[in-house]
Amino acid sequence: DALPCADLSQAFQRKHRDLSLCCSHYSQIDHFGFLQDGTFKQRYLVADKQWHQPDGPILFYTGNEGDITWFCDNTGFMWEVAGQLGAMLVFAEHRYYGESLPFGQDSYSDSKHLNYLTSEQALADFAVLIQNLKSSVPGAQNSPVIAIGGSYGGMLSAWFRMKYPNIVVGALAASAPIWQFPNMVPCGDFYKIVTQDFAKSGKNCDANIRRSWKAINNVSSTASGLQWLSEEFSLCAPLKNKFEAVNFKSWLQETWVNLAMVDYPYEANFLQPLPRWPIQVVCKYLGFDATVSDYQLLHGVAQAAKVYYNYTGSSPCLNTSQTATSSLGALGWFFQACTEMVMPMCTDGVQDMFEPEEWNFQAYSDECNAMFGVRPRADWAGTVYGGKKIASHSNIIFSNGGLDPWSAGGVTSNTTQSLVSIMIPDGAHHLDLRYSNALDPPSVRAARALELKYFQKWIRQAQRSTGTGYTVSKKRRIFL
Amino acid sequence: DALPCADLSQAFQRKHRDLSLCCSHYSQIDHFGFLQDGTFKQRYLVADKQWHQPDGPILFYTGNEGDITWFCDNTGFMWEVAGQLGAMLVFAEHRYYGESLPFGQDSYSDSKHLNYLTSEQALADFAVLIQNLKSSVPGAQNSPVIAIGGSYGGMLSAWFRMKYPNIVVGALAASAPIWQFPNMVPCGDFYKIVTQDFAKSGKNCDANIRRSWKAINNVSSTASGLQWLSEEFSLCAPLKNKFEAVNFKSWLQETWVNLAMVDYPYEANFLQPLPRWPIQVVCKYLGFDATVSDYQLLHGVAQAAKVYYNYTGSSPCLNTSQTATSSLGALGWFFQACTEMVMPMCTDGVQDMFEPEEWNFQAYSDECNAMFGVRPRADWAGTVYGGKKIASHSNIIFSNGGLDPWSAGGVTSNTTQSLVSIMIPDGAHHLDLRYSNALDPPSVRAARALELKYFQKWIRQAQRSTGTGYTVSKKRRIFL
Repeated sequence: DALPCADLSQAFQRKHRDLSLCCSHYSQIDHFGFLQDGTFKQRYLVADKQWHQPDGPILFYTGNEGDITWFCDNTGFMWEVAGQLGAMLVFAEHRYYGESLPFGQDSYSDSKHLNYLTSEQALADFAVLIQNLKSSVPGAQNSPVIAIGGSYGGMLSAWFRMKYPNIVVGALAASAPIWQFPNMVPCGDFYKIVTQDFAKSGKNCDANIRRSWKAINNVSSTASGLQWLSEEFSLCAPLKNKFEAVNFKSWLQETWVNLAMVDYPYEANFLQPLPRWPIQVVCKYLGFDATVSDYQLLHGVAQAAKVYYNYTGSSPCLNTSQTATSSLGALGWFFQACTEMVMPMCTDGVQDMFEPEEWNFQAYSDECNAMFGVRPRADWAGTVYGGKKIASHSNIIFSNGGLDPWSAGGVTSNTTQSLVSIMIPDGAHHLDLRYSNALDPPSVRAARALELKYFQKWIRQAQRSTGTGYTVSKKRRIFL
Repeated sequence: DALPCADLSQAFQRKHRDLSLCCSHYSQIDHFGFLQDGTFKQRYLVADKQWHQPDGPILFYTGNEGDITWFCDNTGFMWEVAGQLGAMLVFAEHRYYGESLPFGQDSYSDSKHLNYLTSEQALADFAVLIQNLKSSVPGAQNSPVIAIGGSYGGMLSAWFRMKYPNIVVGALAASAPIWQFPNMVPCGDFYKIVTQDFAKSGKNCDANIRRSWKAINNVSSTASGLQWLSEEFSLCAPLKNKFEAVNFKSWLQETWVNLAMVDYPYEANFLQPLPRWPIQVVCKYLGFDATVSDYQLLHGVAQAAKVYYNYTGSSPCLNTSQTATSSLGALGWFFQACTEMVMPMCTDGVQDMFEPEEWNFQAYSDECNAMFGVRPRADWAGTVYGGKKIASHSNIIFSNGGLDPWSAGGVTSNTTQSLVSIMIPDGAHHLDLRYSNALDPPSVRAARALELKYFQKWIRQAQRSTGTGYTVSKKRRIFL
């Protein structure tokens, strides 16, 4: 009975024609200053068919860097537990993404208009939205709210609980790399995990990708080689020179990273439509031994890349300017990475299968300045969100997939009794948030069951403290 | 061995000539946006003579709306416990006050320059300052930091622990009215407490102040009456018309409020130089029975006002444009009250001794708009700082004085085991933060002793978690 999310707002409007809250609300453009007093329309989606009114819980998706309908469609877990919890679902879009543009078409025009694109502003939007819902939806006033998010959205859900425990009783932060910031984890771990995923998915698979970079350098050093590469990879825009070959390598590197993120045990369409265990399929083309020629190797790499970019067979050519769904707002995320979200990454070519590249903050900062006219603040995220010192917070689940490179920056062991980590060894990027599937490994089923148990515990805690929900006998109360 | 605070920075400079951190640091003008990338010099004072290096605690005063040297001088409690704790003292000035002006002389020129005067920015300044100190002062890296503040500074210290528990292990929020915001406490409680202070300090005292407003209306209705009033009160600027009489009443009302705040048991100079139990002295002039004439009554009121404004006998005339020390930044606080710090107040003339006045948010907002070109956001403080839903936080002491009108908006009962309230029934505004005095009532001595105990507990907790401080046996650890 779950509605397709893209149609949700219309369906919701049909159902609640008289409800003024429906699907967008006005939020301050600047929560932290009073000179800019404008507001913008923030979109959110609501599904309340399963909601137990009054006082039933609200599961609140803290939207990340993309169109909220896309996250809504890819967070089947919420739809599946709504019934068991009697929960209302709310999916809130992050400012500057999807339709929630503070300055409409001008939102990305310059750094002045981009100035309000920060995680702090986004969290304030969520807080104000929930307060508005609680004060205007009949029966919602005492509803305990649980924040849920994946990836950057998971970071937001964890931070939301940390900064606004008055608004949310707990948070599920799925595949949320809250420690992928300077001086918290080694910068090379991310790419090591990508490499391990390929190493265990086929013989010689990581070794051949490691070899491929030099092969590309060799082949792309001549005009005929560039032409051959372009044809072999069916590139929409043929490579014209060595500089374009550098971009081409970056695009390939991002392709392998994306595959590691979406290495799901069943056919799925998250970043791209893909077969089940896509890295195993990719690695079938990369089993050569060390005697392979550059051209043979790169032929295999091209076949492998097409698993990612043309699994459906409907792509006439490969576009090196895009690696994932257009539902993600890449430019907005670049800006965030150039301001608050400074996530050091590095490769050494030995423990990983990529060309060696050190983390160079100064160069990174200069790039950001050239691109947006802003400079990143390396230490700010750690200061404002606590870095490794999070033990005084409570009621946060950090779930991580063992196949997911983002687990390198995740919280992968319990911090306290109520700040817990759930590992899903054979899970990729927030597999637990997806609809359940017959091919799901037991680890993700167990993770979801445990997450549901924590939700129920937090809801009971909240209901006890407000006196709502089922009655607990006085005698039992003492022991809880 | 405590240094006079006003001389502190010079003494500190002499002592640490080679320490680059000394007494001011550069902080971002805008922590929450990246367009404005400027920095400003934030002043802070350090006293480290008693500090146990390494790892001794830091007591950090979260400066409020005024010159930090003045708060430093009026927070003797910190100086007195520094030795027992082996603590370093840091007093951080709040942006836009004292010498910490983000745009120098232009800081108050318009709402554009005032745009960065918010509590969130101030907390971020404190967080960044502490991170800077920890990373640059040898031996401070593992020092547990305790936030301490009084009044608005106490609100900041509580909020600092709530929002940055990674930075401070606990907070003492003395006389901090964190609930004096819309829909949290009755708007009339503040003035009721002022009235009670006068009622119990002398016979008929509150009744005669209640009568005085009508007497002023009567007398000020004629030119000769205005002249008489001006002479009787020795006003520097004689009253010219009825409108000035309205301001005159406001000034008197504020005078009685200030007296309630500083009704200390010994001679002191906080807002003004005053005798011990100043309200008792004031009330000696206000003992009339109901048959007194308007002129007799107002003669008594004038004598009473002079207790507050001319106790030392050195004021040639009374200035109705100022009611307290110029160390407080009144304009900055007006701006804060016109943006985030919306604190509803009202009087009914029955349960309090003032002219009836309802709380009118719209009129208030219009005034703010006329004065600064900004409009207050009534609900924001409750959303961002949690309102009454603070139970998930920890390690905060809320101390309140029973004589202090600000206790109306304070936390006056324990919320949890680690979110505690300390009442000082015969204390006025943050009496506990002042130097101890032979005339201190037992309640404030007990409060200070308990506060010190909590500090020691928080420090032990922190030292255990970082492995610094004294060794705890493994066996014992299990039970702690």
